[in-house]
Amino acid sequence: MSLQNKKTQGIPRTELPTRLAQARGDEKVDILIKNIQILNVITGEIYPSVIAIGGEYIVGVGLEYADAPARRVIDGGGAFITPGFIDGHLHIESSMMSPFEFEAATLPLGTTTAICDPHEITNVMGARGFEWFLRCAEITKQNLFVQMSSCVPALPGFETTGSDFTLDEMKKLKNHPAVLGLAEMMNFPGVINADNSVLDKVEEFSDLNLDGHAPLLQGKALNAYLLAGIQNCHETVTLEEGREKLQKGMGLIIREGSVAKNLKTLAPLVSEFSSPQCLLCTDDRNPFEIAHEGHINFIIKELINTHKVPVHVAYRLATYSAAKHFGLKRLGLVAPGKRADLVLLKDLTQVSIKDVMIAGELVSELKLSDKVSEKLLKSNPPMENTIKRTPIKESDLPFPDTKGTYNVIEIVQNEIITKHLKCSFDGISFDQDDVLFMANIERYGQNLPAGLGFVRGTGLKSGALASSVAHDSHNIMVIGTNVADMCVAVNEIIRMGGGFVVADKGAVQASVELPIAGLLSLKSADEIKKGIETLKVAFKRQGVILEEPFIQMAFLALPVIPTLKLTDKGLVDVTQFKFIPLEATV
Amino acid sequence: MSLQNKKTQGIPRTELPTRLAQARGDEKVDILIKNIQILNVITGEIYPSVIAIGGEYIVGVGLEYADAPARRVIDGGGAFITPGFIDGHLHIESSMMSPFEFEAATLPLGTTTAICDPHEITNVMGARGFEWFLRCAEITKQNLFVQMSSCVPALPGFETTGSDFTLDEMKKLKNHPAVLGLAEMMNFPGVINADNSVLDKVEEFSDLNLDGHAPLLQGKALNAYLLAGIQNCHETVTLEEGREKLQKGMGLIIREGSVAKNLKTLAPLVSEFSSPQCLLCTDDRNPFEIAHEGHINFIIKELINTHKVPVHVAYRLATYSAAKHFGLKRLGLVAPGKRADLVLLKDLTQVSIKDVMIAGELVSELKLSDKVSEKLLKSNPPMENTIKRTPIKESDLPFPDTKGTYNVIEIVQNEIITKHLKCSFDGISFDQDDVLFMANIERYGQNLPAGLGFVRGTGLKSGALASSVAHDSHNIMVIGTNVADMCVAVNEIIRMGGGFVVADKGAVQASVELPIAGLLSLKSADEIKKGIETLKVAFKRQGVILEEPFIQMAFLALPVIPTLKLTDKGLVDVTQFKFIPLEATV
Repeated sequence: MSLQNKKTQGIPRTELPTRLAQARGDEKVDILIKNIQILNVITGEIYPSVIAIGGEYIVGVGLEYADAPARRVIDGGGAFITPGFIDGHLHIESSMMSPFEFEAATLPLGTTTAICDPHEITNVMGARGFEWFLRCAEITKQNLFVQMSSCVPALPGFETTGSDFTLDEMKKLKNHPAVLGLAEMMNFPGVINADNSVLDKVEEFSDLNLDGHAPLLQGKALNAYLLAGIQNCHETVTLEEGREKLQKGMGLIIREGSVAKNLKTLAPLVSEFSSPQCLLCTDDRNPFEIAHEGHINFIIKELINTHKVPVHVAYRLATYSAAKHFGLKRLGLVAPGKRADLVLLKDLTQVSIKDVMIAGELVSELKLSDKVSEKLLKSNPPMENTIKRTPIKESDLPFPDTKGTYNVIEIVQNEIITKHLKCSFDGISFDQDDVLFMANIERYGQNLPAGLGFVRGTGLKSGALASSVAHDSHNIMVIGTNVADMCVAVNEIIRMGGGFVVADKGAVQASVELPIAGLLSLKSADEIKKGIETLKVAFKRQGVILEEPFIQMAFLALPVIPTLKLTDKGLVDVTQFKFIPLEATV
Repeated sequence: MSLQNKKTQGIPRTELPTRLAQARGDEKVDILIKNIQILNVITGEIYPSVIAIGGEYIVGVGLEYADAPARRVIDGGGAFITPGFIDGHLHIESSMMSPFEFEAATLPLGTTTAICDPHEITNVMGARGFEWFLRCAEITKQNLFVQMSSCVPALPGFETTGSDFTLDEMKKLKNHPAVLGLAEMMNFPGVINADNSVLDKVEEFSDLNLDGHAPLLQGKALNAYLLAGIQNCHETVTLEEGREKLQKGMGLIIREGSVAKNLKTLAPLVSEFSSPQCLLCTDDRNPFEIAHEGHINFIIKELINTHKVPVHVAYRLATYSAAKHFGLKRLGLVAPGKRADLVLLKDLTQVSIKDVMIAGELVSELKLSDKVSEKLLKSNPPMENTIKRTPIKESDLPFPDTKGTYNVIEIVQNEIITKHLKCSFDGISFDQDDVLFMANIERYGQNLPAGLGFVRGTGLKSGALASSVAHDSHNIMVIGTNVADMCVAVNEIIRMGGGFVVADKGAVQASVELPIAGLLSLKSADEIKKGIETLKVAFKRQGVILEEPFIQMAFLALPVIPTLKLTDKGLVDVTQFKFIPLEATV
């Protein structure tokens, strides 16, 4: 198999003669966009042009079409035109929106292509969740590509997960037109150490794309990871690490998510010369930041204005570089034969978007928001309740009350890595402030004992926060000042079938429902935002100092990111990949 | 099918664990190259490094391998290291050398990869000729890729050819690991005008590469050509044409051949930013220029020294840009997991090559020249005499001797296009000097009447030149001051089974035999050069002013390059794609 059968890759043969006739000028074109200036991401030039469109494709570009007969003429009003933006790696689940709501929120921001990895829902419900994303990709106007989640569960044996996702299942789905390759291979030790089952996956997808995930990986280990054919990384944290990855031929996907923000660090690596190897991605971006800052458009704007990257270079990263990297030969350029995925801008530097075109249709005319429910229904989403836990009681959270030294996870604001503290408990209080109870509670029907831990850095003074979003196996995560409120919060999560809860004084203070897999809302982006605002009011009232406590809490469960994490099976020391007890060895 | 099964694309799974262990430092590497400086064609930096090699592949790059245990250590002596050079498009037949002699001549010059189109031999002997090139590609150390000759014959109906090459034959060979795609689609009118049989070929190869050929194509026609998926052009003649092709997303393959030289014109388009879309090729380069100037190494040197392109940009064109363009994911970089195809240089600016490594072997140690005959034998070359013409006599060349105005082909020195003159003949001489007889004589066993014409611009004062190299159908081409010597020259070509002949005063003055398909020599590059030198002495003595009369003569037969050409069937007006009589309409 090859990439040729994938979405957007070819003009159907039956259609080609008509498109050629339109290009030649022998037949009327469908749309002519006039009075525009193209930012050319190959040459860096900006010049007046005309774009002739036939069906979903650009059939011609250039002033030679100025007087071409057309079914419709769009006056660009002097707008600048760039190719549509490509998000090189993201988990749509992190937006809490369905792919259709996500599309309605991000397509108007210029993100015409999203290369997603639905590994959150796949951890919860396996191939059934993954296949729903494939069905969504058949319906969205946005070019939704769905990489094959490579590490479900993220760390076998360290957590209870809703399902796994086997190579046999992957093989059956690999041929789908939305699958461009293997999603982030987080098990980099498995690749480097030639674990057979990991290399089986890499080999199976070597004719497609092989996405990487290798935070802080440098030196010999990085060489080995690349040797196996892994082609990119979006987890680069330091400048030196980024330089080494570029030098060694790795695609540098620069991430600016809601928590993990690498743009400032990595922007100095972006130049005219290095630009073809640099891409952009959001990875995990919540509806709040999508609404207030933006999506890929925001990253471009930051590159230009904050990091002083030249305009033509910044736009190239989000267009040509990404398309080339993933072998998407009909995307990433405003050129004949490419898909008519365009961004019309009033101002290039400010990335002020006037309108967006997707496959020859103006997004302003698509009324995407009106059609979300209809599309969602058509996609046949998996609606069963995935929170299969019976309600818990205080005795299910048997935190120790004896004197001693305990292992404590310390949160680092705006990072997904944590610190490993050892704090002394005198029977009443810890020797450090802000150390709270935390539990990770299995929710896949086994009613296993909870994983227990201590956490520092939330600022919470009263009550509890609970969530069914906890990477990547999405058991129920809860943090609290007392066990009673923790039970209230967890039991509300169970009652709702998933979501976020703030509890205090024995009662629920605020909540957001996430009924699809305990991860996604059925509501609109606006409604989700409003829900999150009520959560924010509640948790701030209770003392929380983190901007995004639920997102940060979600990553406290992820045992593939250093340093100390809590799964439903207990505390994981990620530097050693082993469980450690709550009580510390001093 | 995809590119994954192609040569150099992957490390065999059975070998991968060993290579990973070498990369990790857990196993001894095969070769360690120390005391070197890498020119990084991604970042543009130059820095000291160490290269660790396992089998045919680079397993690690970086100072972290400085002390790695190795079976062999090579001291680079401070040399600069770049990736091996890639020739983006060429016809090896134009070198008159077999692929093995070509390899011996060009691999030491740094050309580790050659993407060839054997359409000369395929015109002569169809799939049998093509398949020989595939067999050669299985034997050469040089990465020889063989694009599928798309237009055999070049212009159906306009010339007699030895064979055609059908889509069905192509389909059977497409899966060969050396086939990267469809070779130069010279029938651009067929693509643009949606000729079904042409689009069938384009469609069949759309999952591989689609090479273009579109001299002077601009505007709407260029848009249409690109729309169909054609991805590059090596026939760009003017600066404006090159700019437009770049702007419209076409890969710009800059050619510097023996006759067609486009480097000076197109170099101004090469910049750091545009570099990923610019490649280099030789197309047609004879053994003389390969020996005296060089190959791709010469083009790099010219880019840097004559055209002031920055060093890192010049090398990128010949390495990374070409590899990316053709989807060769293990070539074009000095990086982990890439093939150990390297050039070691004493000086980057002068491109002074110290040694070359191909797949982990030093070319200086391969003794390629000693093994040419052995490899040639192994490849089972097609050795039958392809010159199936019975000897001609003067009455077979019935040039008109009546007064009138005649169509005359004017040669343009160092160009493959010609001018169309109309010259008046008074029964004794033409109104312009240097107008000579020319004939194109069918040689595939039909003994058809010769195509007759007049040519201006050789300077020949006496005798005749004949050749069995005449693009693309390779009938016998002869130019002379008198018919008697023309017969002598042609009959010597027939006797030899192909080659070049200079005749004068009723006798052969000098000749070079080309027994394989009338195109290729069985001799060494040195011997071929010596043969050409004797030809040069002879034709200069007879007044020829062209540097390369045989190469220019070869293109006088090619009816897909403007303006006026002569096939065995007669004069072709290439602006109208129709035959015109010898006598001109005034």
